[in-house]
Amino acid sequence: MMKLYHTELSGNCHKVRLMLSLLQIEHERVLIDLASGEHKSANFLEINPLGQVPVLMDGDTLIRDSQAILVYLTRKYEREDWLPLEAESMAKVMQWLSFAANEINTSLFIARLHFRFGMDFDWETAQQKGKQVLQIIDTHLQDRNWLECNSATIADIACYPYVGLAPEGKVALEPYPNILAWIDHIKQLPGYETMPGL
Amino acid sequence: MMKLYHTELSGNCHKVRLMLSLLQIEHERVLIDLASGEHKSANFLEINPLGQVPVLMDGDTLIRDSQAILVYLTRKYEREDWLPLEAESMAKVMQWLSFAANEINTSLFIARLHFRFGMDFDWETAQQKGKQVLQIIDTHLQDRNWLECNSATIADIACYPYVGLAPEGKVALEPYPNILAWIDHIKQLPGYETMPGL
Repeated sequence: MMKLYHTELSGNCHKVRLMLSLLQIEHERVLIDLASGEHKSANFLEINPLGQVPVLMDGDTLIRDSQAILVYLTRKYEREDWLPLEAESMAKVMQWLSFAANEINTSLFIARLHFRFGMDFDWETAQQKGKQVLQIIDTHLQDRNWLECNSATIADIACYPYVGLAPEGKVALEPYPNILAWIDHIKQLPGYETMPGL
Repeated sequence: MMKLYHTELSGNCHKVRLMLSLLQIEHERVLIDLASGEHKSANFLEINPLGQVPVLMDGDTLIRDSQAILVYLTRKYEREDWLPLEAESMAKVMQWLSFAANEINTSLFIARLHFRFGMDFDWETAQQKGKQVLQIIDTHLQDRNWLECNSATIADIACYPYVGLAPEGKVALEPYPNILAWIDHIKQLPGYETMPGL
């Protein structure tokens, strides 16, 4: 059975939990204790040299990085509704996977680390950049319900947790009505699973 | 004919130039003048609301983000040698696209912006993180010639420019022999194109 190494409060881990739940994939979850530094232990570094969760283990196959795990799951179960193979559609979805890995991770993610976990970061810059990120998403959503392809794809799942958790980084979502509507659509997906803060 | 909006000294643009060249795809190149702020002009923001190059225009199709453009080109020309569709292989390639968008972009990319373009960044943190990034890649390459799949894929193309340009951010490549060998392999690919600094 697939095994997911994760922590409860990580939005990156939640992308994977949510996808597994939406696709109704049976799996086992293994909690990694970040507080005691388990993710930097020799044992775990053998699993992921980057010392990060989530990691998915499927038999001999080890996949790290939340975006890559979303790709793995949708390809393994041939869910082209969630990750289309046609060039333009796949590239448009890919834009948001990069956006999640770069723009969201260097803004809303950082602001939350500061305010939710007390880590020392330049939270003002992170919040300011976070508001630009939310504005870009909100404008994009003004004439659509989903980020791409007129239906839920892994683009939505990759961007959702840290956008939804923005208030934990003291960035309000109220100024972005299209994002609030999008979050509602996601929460209504059959099999939706939540996490603290969402 | 496809049109690439780019700037000469951007490593992200170079990923796309290199891919177009390796796949021998006829295209037109349009230089965007960052110095005069052309990428933040109303005209260009309509093309890409993020105000970034590269952008690829193929008829009515607009793709932003260098990683997404690599996906677009390989899917459009059905080059599964460069982007395999099998679940594990695609996910492994995807890991490195995220690594390029996140880890490389927040380290080697930033150090180069500081030293090559005089932008005000925390270069010491960027260099330190950059050395960790290089160590991870070097260790991964110790028993392989390419990042994944035993052959060149878009994983290599996505990571190559900012790794190769590390010395412009005053991070030396000499301590990483496997990376130096990998760079040589890439330079020997038929159709290889270079840029200043590589």
